[in-house]
Amino acid sequence: MTERELIEYIERLTASRDVPWLETGIGDDAAIIRPPGSGASLAVTTDMAVEGVHYEEETAVELAARKAVARALSDVAAMAARPLCAFAAVLLGAGRDEQTGRRLMGALVEAARQMGAPLVGGDIAVAKGATTCITVTAVGTPGPAGFVLRSGAMFGDAICVTGRLGGSLQGRHLRFSPRINEALHLSQEYDLHALIDISDGLSTDALHLAAASGRGMALRAADIPIAAAASRGEREPLWHALNDGEDYELLFCLSARQAQRAAREGAAGLEVTVIGTVEESEESFLLMPDGSRQTLESGGWEHEL
Amino acid sequence: MTERELIEYIERLTASRDVPWLETGIGDDAAIIRPPGSGASLAVTTDMAVEGVHYEEETAVELAARKAVARALSDVAAMAARPLCAFAAVLLGAGRDEQTGRRLMGALVEAARQMGAPLVGGDIAVAKGATTCITVTAVGTPGPAGFVLRSGAMFGDAICVTGRLGGSLQGRHLRFSPRINEALHLSQEYDLHALIDISDGLSTDALHLAAASGRGMALRAADIPIAAAASRGEREPLWHALNDGEDYELLFCLSARQAQRAAREGAAGLEVTVIGTVEESEESFLLMPDGSRQTLESGGWEHEL
Repeated sequence: MTERELIEYIERLTASRDVPWLETGIGDDAAIIRPPGSGASLAVTTDMAVEGVHYEEETAVELAARKAVARALSDVAAMAARPLCAFAAVLLGAGRDEQTGRRLMGALVEAARQMGAPLVGGDIAVAKGATTCITVTAVGTPGPAGFVLRSGAMFGDAICVTGRLGGSLQGRHLRFSPRINEALHLSQEYDLHALIDISDGLSTDALHLAAASGRGMALRAADIPIAAAASRGEREPLWHALNDGEDYELLFCLSARQAQRAAREGAAGLEVTVIGTVEESEESFLLMPDGSRQTLESGGWEHEL
Repeated sequence: MTERELIEYIERLTASRDVPWLETGIGDDAAIIRPPGSGASLAVTTDMAVEGVHYEEETAVELAARKAVARALSDVAAMAARPLCAFAAVLLGAGRDEQTGRRLMGALVEAARQMGAPLVGGDIAVAKGATTCITVTAVGTPGPAGFVLRSGAMFGDAICVTGRLGGSLQGRHLRFSPRINEALHLSQEYDLHALIDISDGLSTDALHLAAASGRGMALRAADIPIAAAASRGEREPLWHALNDGEDYELLFCLSARQAQRAAREGAAGLEVTVIGTVEESEESFLLMPDGSRQTLESGGWEHEL
């Protein structure tokens, strides 16, 4: 069971429920709820950082804690939301002594504060044989343009990305900053039609936008901004930029005219690159430098059950 | 580092932050947030169910999933809140195949629906060597009397408990129903001054109420309602009723007169027993049948780091 199958499975299970306060359920970067009696909607997302999956056993617990918080906050950014607060559940496993636990919790508190979502609740369990697992739930309020979903990409839109992609395993995956301010800036300055963060890889996440919007994505290979770290991988840099994942950059769609301005002005100091266009058909493809077309396939990380 | 020390540690870390939207932070059964622009407060809590800690490897994943949801919803009940929705993060460990994953996710969805908090978001990770860990974050809205905290117990109040205590490991810990309706009923019918769910054990959780309220709790040993399962343990039944934990019953304080009526009428069909009184001093003790006093000590589960 892939994560996508699971999402569809839960969508089916939940689709029949009478939940008028649920504006967007499973399938976007965060759920959007509008609690009864409340004038405001909230984005809520939950993410894990698991030892051996999202970081190595040798990784300092401070970096593991930081990554756990940043992963959740990147989902908040992917909704163009403003961080409000965070909750952490920590399973502390084998070889983790009291001092390590204190360091981990301290780092969670500090990272959450730095990223604008103070830690206000949590749970902790210790099991000698267990794998350390940090779960962070983050809550966000609407940004200047409300929330931006994955589903609004329109035929003729330009597809843009912040920063540079690929090679995240060289270190970036532990040290990235969630693009919160950049997403707030972009959503204030432009009419963003669709937005996602690149966690699974450009190829996979572009297909997520495509599926949610019912449109195809045409990416121009030559225009994809490639990180220096991508050239230190085993395959060609483009492959890493498309498929490595964990870039935690923003991928978004807006009118071609607005995209030109965004590329010129950047996003709160970060470069913005136009990398493709939204197609009328639902077919997504990669335009190669030699003019050939390759079907865009999900080569990024798919969580296999 | 015990869980209590951790809570105090985070309280210190967060106390200095300027978070006007945080009505109640770490230290109660759930955090209470009032998002900017919202007219309504929310209770949010996050809880884990970890294989080998909260359930055995042999436990059916359906029961494990149910317990994970019920633990979080018991914290919602402990605020006298109305469940709104839930989020789940699942780390699926060794020996768990695709079919097991589907069963677990299906059980999470079903338990959350049954308990009135539909699952609307989640995350999943698979690691062959990992311990299965299910984290559930639950969101609740104010009940008929708003939220009821741990901190309002007043000198002269009666201390009451729902149901019967002890012996939960005999099976109840996997099959309990969070006392949501009972808490809503009680908070509508009576002016509850303080409320908690008994997860760590009557002794520990009474001391939690005492500490939060700055008052002592005097419990009458002879009046504590003891579950039949408590007599099948290794020690005397009273010990199990005081210290086993995982009863997930409600422990609450209200005026002595109201308590008499609650004991007579019960809570939505569940028995209510008056088991003690709130003292003026901060000392908590157990009144034994022979008239002696024993200092009330935390004998329940304390999460050790």
